Amino acid sequence: MQALSVRHLLGIKEITPADIQLIFETADNFKEVLNRPIKKVPSLRDITIANVFFENSTRTRLSFELAQKRLSADIVNFSASGSSVKKGETLLDTVNNILAMKVDMIVMRHASAGAPHFLSKHIKANIVNAGDGTHEHPTQALLDAFSIREKLGEVAGKKIAIIGDILHSRVALSNIFALQKLKAEVMVCGPVTLLPRYISALGVKVELNVRKALEWCDVANVLRIQLERQQMKYFPSLREYTLYYGIDKKLLDSLNKEIVIMHPGPINRGVELSSDAADSQQAIILNQVENGVAIRMAVLYLLASRV
Amino acid sequence: MQALSVRHLLGIKEITPADIQLIFETADNFKEVLNRPIKKVPSLRDITIANVFFENSTRTRLSFELAQKRLSADIVNFSASGSSVKKGETLLDTVNNILAMKVDMIVMRHASAGAPHFLSKHIKANIVNAGDGTHEHPTQALLDAFSIREKLGEVAGKKIAIIGDILHSRVALSNIFALQKLKAEVMVCGPVTLLPRYISALGVKVELNVRKALEWCDVANVLRIQLERQQMKYFPSLREYTLYYGIDKKLLDSLNKEIVIMHPGPINRGVELSSDAADSQQAIILNQVENGVAIRMAVLYLLASRV
Amino acid sequence: MQALSVRHLLGIKEITPADIQLIFETADNFKEVLNRPIKKVPSLRDITIANVFFENSTRTRLSFELAQKRLSADIVNFSASGSSVKKGETLLDTVNNILAMKVDMIVMRHASAGAPHFLSKHIKANIVNAGDGTHEHPTQALLDAFSIREKLGEVAGKKIAIIGDILHSRVALSNIFALQKLKAEVMVCGPVTLLPRYISALGVKVELNVRKALEWCDVANVLRIQLERQQMKYFPSLREYTLYYGIDKKLLDSLNKEIVIMHPGPINRGVELSSDAADSQQAIILNQVENGVAIRMAVLYLLASRV
Repeated sequence: MQALSVRHLLGIKEITPADIQLIFETADNFKEVLNRPIKKVPSLRDITIANVFFENSTRTRLSFELAQKRLSADIVNFSASGSSVKKGETLLDTVNNILAMKVDMIVMRHASAGAPHFLSKHIKANIVNAGDGTHEHPTQALLDAFSIREKLGEVAGKKIAIIGDILHSRVALSNIFALQKLKAEVMVCGPVTLLPRYISALGVKVELNVRKALEWCDVANVLRIQLERQQMKYFPSLREYTLYYGIDKKLLDSLNKEIVIMHPGPINRGVELSSDAADSQQAIILNQVENGVAIRMAVLYLLASRV
Repeated sequence: MQALSVRHLLGIKEITPADIQLIFETADNFKEVLNRPIKKVPSLRDITIANVFFENSTRTRLSFELAQKRLSADIVNFSASGSSVKKGETLLDTVNNILAMKVDMIVMRHASAGAPHFLSKHIKANIVNAGDGTHEHPTQALLDAFSIREKLGEVAGKKIAIIGDILHSRVALSNIFALQKLKAEVMVCGPVTLLPRYISALGVKVELNVRKALEWCDVANVLRIQLERQQMKYFPSLREYTLYYGIDKKLLDSLNKEIVIMHPGPINRGVELSSDAADSQQAIILNQVENGVAIRMAVLYLLASRV
Repeated sequence: MQALSVRHLLGIKEITPADIQLIFETADNFKEVLNRPIKKVPSLRDITIANVFFENSTRTRLSFELAQKRLSADIVNFSASGSSVKKGETLLDTVNNILAMKVDMIVMRHASAGAPHFLSKHIKANIVNAGDGTHEHPTQALLDAFSIREKLGEVAGKKIAIIGDILHSRVALSNIFALQKLKAEVMVCGPVTLLPRYISALGVKVELNVRKALEWCDVANVLRIQLERQQMKYFPSLREYTLYYGIDKKLLDSLNKEIVIMHPGPINRGVELSSDAADSQQAIILNQVENGVAIRMAVLYLLASRV
């Protein structure tokens, strides 16, 4: 059997194109399983997985939990609210405590970039990074690329524009890494105040004009604008953002081709994406969610098999 | 096999007397199962149910969760606190996201009347309303009527008085609909400030004097007075309520017959019901709780079988 | 088969030395199971356990939950936040409601000393006390004594010093009871302001000087100093505590023997224990965590078998 080149899924940066291919082929099989009446397989029956979420993320936790249940794994959920973390315990102590209870894998979300990478140097269990700050969110990038492959046949050679608040995004960086490893062309597009300074070092095209980005691309991955930021004084404001970067059906219809619309969710309807665009035939937003479970099953299965 | 006339349990209003009978007969069977040493049946082994609670409700969630476990269903819990709902996502987007993960049924509590009815027009999965504001709470009404049937042999022809804060109650309306469909006589009793204006349109007797209500009825369903309301300036105050509407054993013993006492819980002992009344032989409050699991098993089973 | 002398595990005070031996021998077997690839046994397949936590305790809840999963029990979790407890319901009503749903055992944490003892007089289900205020935390004391037995061969005749904030500790009292029943010698050591007034009545040695305590003992059980208390004006302050009572590797190396270091967690590194002491070979802190699951499996199994 083929195996991943890594013991953890810390980020897309650490894995090879062959790893991604293996994850996709495994996810193909699991997606077939998920469309059967009996969606459960006994693959991880003797594996215990802890979902350790130091930040809330209902959507990602739910997707991981369903993936784990489909694989028949045993699950324990640990959330930071009200936990020993607040009592001054170190991250490593918290995780070592969980592992001492004979847990085999850790799915972890943490507010600090690099937290899972730090852990991976000190523990034996497999770690899956479910988002470390605004750094990497590898399973999101994998499900995004998998959804493009499903829709367009392949990722190589395709033009993908990532549009919106690149600076504060949890998913932009992982997406860039994944798409580049799969030989797609990547562009980022957004107001200059929402682009990170290091963006030019990543080998992606940069475009400030959203119409030009849409005209260039085959797929637009539209990121979420955080409503929380509306309270802050920053440029652009939500209204300005929608005015200059909001994507609606009229704009899409005015292009000389039909592009694919993606969004990692949750959508702010009427801000970054209008309802008629989000609900249109060219949007594959719910396919992304569906593929998320299959991709996470594949990642958990391949990491567990590697031990 | 018989089937329900509906795909969802949105409210008692939407179902027929025959539906209620079918649910009761199915619950009879499940109640027998729950009294066996092995309380689990494999009926929903391949069904995944999401409990989507936009409002806290430990008691109702626990009852649904146990019903689901007894049926061997797979369960995921989604609560609104800290979730994407707070990030500005629409109700429909939230639920469509959960369904895209291949969830078969949604048990849902929401603060807004009509939320599950709205959803039912847009999604394919079965929905069970676990309370929509002060509108309907159909499984509570079913377990209440089932408990009356169990205690008194039948519901038809029996006189039921619903006593207390009808206006803010989550369960009064569903109870009225269920009891009327089962041909019971229904009275509501409470201070006029706690009766809804539309009450006369519902075809129930209205009584302001609690002694007269108790003298009339076979069963008194005593509703909870919300302690939270004590802070507010309203009439009557808690003390006044207890003085004029509080039910104790002495009052019950002074009637010329023994009536059945019900309460949906949680009880405020010493407010709407004294301890000696709540703990008396004529109270079937814990039977209601026990029957809740059987009723919810029946509803989930019948909806799942209908697909 | 041997059986426990009690129906509940309320505290160490209520059980016999023979009970403790039986729990240890049962835990020996379960610990062996936990080291196999397949860690699950079907022992409690038809038992439903409710974890009823009126106070947060991620660590203890997780350990109980894993113990229950290894035993194949059905689990429901009830936490007080947002629950009917806040709506003015009595403890007994809350628990009776849960039990009416056909729950077989209650694992319970409560802020008030004696809460599980009160309950045990009114309900039929088995109760496991998972901490009642600063009174007892029996499974912690059992896992501590079990870890000493594992490390040193036996507990009888060994000298154990419990060091730190005895007054506010959840685990000191249970530890004293357990160690005395197993015929160990027990000393408590800490600043006089953090020793309870009744300490002399417990038949333990009292020592104010930490070096003298360490020189006397075979095992030092170092308790957690609550960071929360830093805000309060009390003597000693955290800095003073660390200065006079903090234990580091240098202090340990200066003793004329190697003692065993224990800690119930979560550790405040650099306060009551330095990192080099906590991570040293003589610390068995993670063994305590591992043994916690086996001990809790044994307690749940033995109580369930007794019914």
